Amino acid sequence: MDWEVIRQRLNELLQEGQHGQLRGALMMLNPVDIADYMGELDHDKLLVVFRVLPKDIAAEVFSYMDTDRRHALMVAIGDAATAELLNEMYLDDAVDFLEELPANAVRRILQNTDPKTRATINRFLNYPVNSAGSLMTIEYCDFDQTMTVREAMDEIRRTGIDKETIYTLYITDRERRLIGAIPLHKVIAAPDDQLLRHLVEPGVVSAVTTDDQEQVADTVRRYHLLSIPVVDHENRLVGIVTADDIMDVIEAENTEDFEKMSGLAPAEEPYFKTPLMQMVKNRLPWLLILMFTSIVSGAIMTRFEHVLAVSVLLQASIPMLMDTGGNCGQQASTLMIRGLALGEVNYRDILKVLFKEIRVGLIVGVVLSAVTFGRLLLLNQASVVMASVISVSLLCTVVIAKSVGCLLPMLADRINIDPALAASPLITTVVDALSLTIYFSIASVLIL
Amino acid sequence: MDWEVIRQRLNELLQEGQHGQLRGALMMLNPVDIADYMGELDHDKLLVVFRVLPKDIAAEVFSYMDTDRRHALMVAIGDAATAELLNEMYLDDAVDFLEELPANAVRRILQNTDPKTRATINRFLNYPVNSAGSLMTIEYCDFDQTMTVREAMDEIRRTGIDKETIYTLYITDRERRLIGAIPLHKVIAAPDDQLLRHLVEPGVVSAVTTDDQEQVADTVRRYHLLSIPVVDHENRLVGIVTADDIMDVIEAENTEDFEKMSGLAPAEEPYFKTPLMQMVKNRLPWLLILMFTSIVSGAIMTRFEHVLAVSVLLQASIPMLMDTGGNCGQQASTLMIRGLALGEVNYRDILKVLFKEIRVGLIVGVVLSAVTFGRLLLLNQASVVMASVISVSLLCTVVIAKSVGCLLPMLADRINIDPALAASPLITTVVDALSLTIYFSIASVLIL
Repeated sequence: MDWEVIRQRLNELLQEGQHGQLRGALMMLNPVDIADYMGELDHDKLLVVFRVLPKDIAAEVFSYMDTDRRHALMVAIGDAATAELLNEMYLDDAVDFLEELPANAVRRILQNTDPKTRATINRFLNYPVNSAGSLMTIEYCDFDQTMTVREAMDEIRRTGIDKETIYTLYITDRERRLIGAIPLHKVIAAPDDQLLRHLVEPGVVSAVTTDDQEQVADTVRRYHLLSIPVVDHENRLVGIVTADDIMDVIEAENTEDFEKMSGLAPAEEPYFKTPLMQMVKNRLPWLLILMFTSIVSGAIMTRFEHVLAVSVLLQASIPMLMDTGGNCGQQASTLMIRGLALGEVNYRDILKVLFKEIRVGLIVGVVLSAVTFGRLLLLNQASVVMASVISVSLLCTVVIAKSVGCLLPMLADRINIDPALAASPLITTVVDALSLTIYFSIASVLIL
Repeated sequence: MDWEVIRQRLNELLQEGQHGQLRGALMMLNPVDIADYMGELDHDKLLVVFRVLPKDIAAEVFSYMDTDRRHALMVAIGDAATAELLNEMYLDDAVDFLEELPANAVRRILQNTDPKTRATINRFLNYPVNSAGSLMTIEYCDFDQTMTVREAMDEIRRTGIDKETIYTLYITDRERRLIGAIPLHKVIAAPDDQLLRHLVEPGVVSAVTTDDQEQVADTVRRYHLLSIPVVDHENRLVGIVTADDIMDVIEAENTEDFEKMSGLAPAEEPYFKTPLMQMVKNRLPWLLILMFTSIVSGAIMTRFEHVLAVSVLLQASIPMLMDTGGNCGQQASTLMIRGLALGEVNYRDILKVLFKEIRVGLIVGVVLSAVTFGRLLLLNQASVVMASVISVSLLCTVVIAKSVGCLLPMLADRINIDPALAASPLITTVVDALSLTIYFSIASVLIL
């Protein structure tokens, strides 16, 4: 059925106060779609729909809603009902929600949860932001290695419904230290009285609570996992992270790289949710820094005033030189930043990369210079000397831009600065200054 | 154990020809790590290690190796053994491998596989590149809705080991049309004689074989799925795509966006695998186009030669104006491209976006202009008129850059061009031309 038709049908049932039918209709939808539908409702209707939903579905829908809607609902239903909702939610979703609230609101709500939940949530809130600990969930199945297959299946039958994923059994020793994993299908196919210990697959990959989420995402992707166990510093199993949450991490980390590469401070919220002044604050610092560095290029032009005065063609070629240099640098830096992020390129490859970029730069530069040389002679009636000055400068600019473009991100990575920060705006400024200096130097020698 | 120690131990066993022990040691590792280790071996040793591995592990390791190594192995073991290997591999991995081979090699290998495998692989090779069909695997569990829980569990016990994931049961009617899904844990917890039909969860999300992989990835991420069923145009179930493959799609699509945004043709291979001339071919077209468009900026300078001649400060401010304009445009376009990619921004929001960008541009522009005005008066001893010309031009440039930066990606998206293509290099060129025109116009009016 078409989404518009569904929406209209739900609106009608809501309008007519047919709450029984409304519940029935909503239950046919995926919770993500229910959250989507509720995102369009005004405050009162939102509350009605929320109350119509069964508790467990309401909790799931709640975890898919955006921050504003969740706050509105929280205020409307009160602290006690919010606490009840938290008890129904998966722990990682509950913690996500609480992390967005002011500290006193968190305290108020936690007072209404049961002591065990409160203790667990408090522990989670203490993990560093964007760490494996803050990302993980405790709704997983762990099993002692001395259990039999039958005991394990009984346990799953008893508790599995409430777990985020039961498709990998994590096996621990008596001190709850992680010793391995068994895919569920192996357990299902095994004889009832087999010990789990005999089914364990070696080489289990795990993350530590304090690991950065980007590192966890890299591991999950590298080993093609659907979930990864998280251990504390004594190798005791404390949680798991599932692949669906990893996908969000991957997109968030990519967005951060896109933003850093464009001289933006990473935004915490989607575009329309970011307040105007926050946007200004995200953009202004780099613009100011880059504006001041670009004054260097202006100073170089002032210093070579006498060269510039020789010919308007020398002046008119500056945008072409600067733009091409910037573009070449950006191409090289983008390849480096992606290569470093995906683990395809390493700092120890720096000379190999530089050699490759210089060769690419030479070939690309010769083509661009030849085209420019021809263009200047034929279309602009430039002298051979003048055309040579501009073309040779262009070649040098391209090679320098490629070199700076690959070196800066690698050096940044080496000293533990995010390579994305050393990307195009900074490179453009550096390349501008270098290429203008070369340009005017060549012009001085050949023309004056 | 440290990876270096493991590697050294494996090398020793290999050197000493201790093949039994070597197999034992390798079996303690994750197949991804085995593939990694084999990536460092020379041709002869590679073959030895590969032959030491049990067949099913060898097939899995093979699917994790890089293209070069796979080709080398394929040649070494011959067509018949390669065909045998394909039979052991998951179908999606086998197809990935075959897609990299020249057509006659594919034909030779397929002649050695059994007719059923051959037919299936041929069907897969016909799906469009980067479609759901080419991404999916056929190793999934599907069940008729009239089966009981006991029958389903028996079927899983019998066939589950060979399936990529058995954690969602896809339920079909008699014509194999997809009607719903059941998470495995619900089946495990249900009474033995319950009909699957009564457990089916409604609102199953699926993809069609011809859907683009980016679209499939968006759906999987949006609904937090671990796998998605793929149907043909008659809604018949033909395969599934699992979350681990989706993560690779997400990274690949992001890399493509990064590359397009930097004026690069998307590369098929990692940095070091891309041949030199391919790199040149990926970079040259946009550089040529952008070089020619930046000549427009040069032409504008030539036209306003008489204005430029008035003061060297007018000339020296050009890099600052161009760079700041480029950076402002890039900030806005990056936010749009990400917003569009993640579904946070829509074409119908275009006026709302423009309004927000203009306001941000005004605030940012006023700050930058004020700083520049002060700098020109105090440090450069500029006249008030001259400082005003430059500062007002800067303000206009910032606002225009923000507007062009948000509009171009949205308009591109509207006419089904990838917004990433309308990103910074193109925007920089457009903003350059506009800002220079404004600059010289203001200067003409106020100074001449």
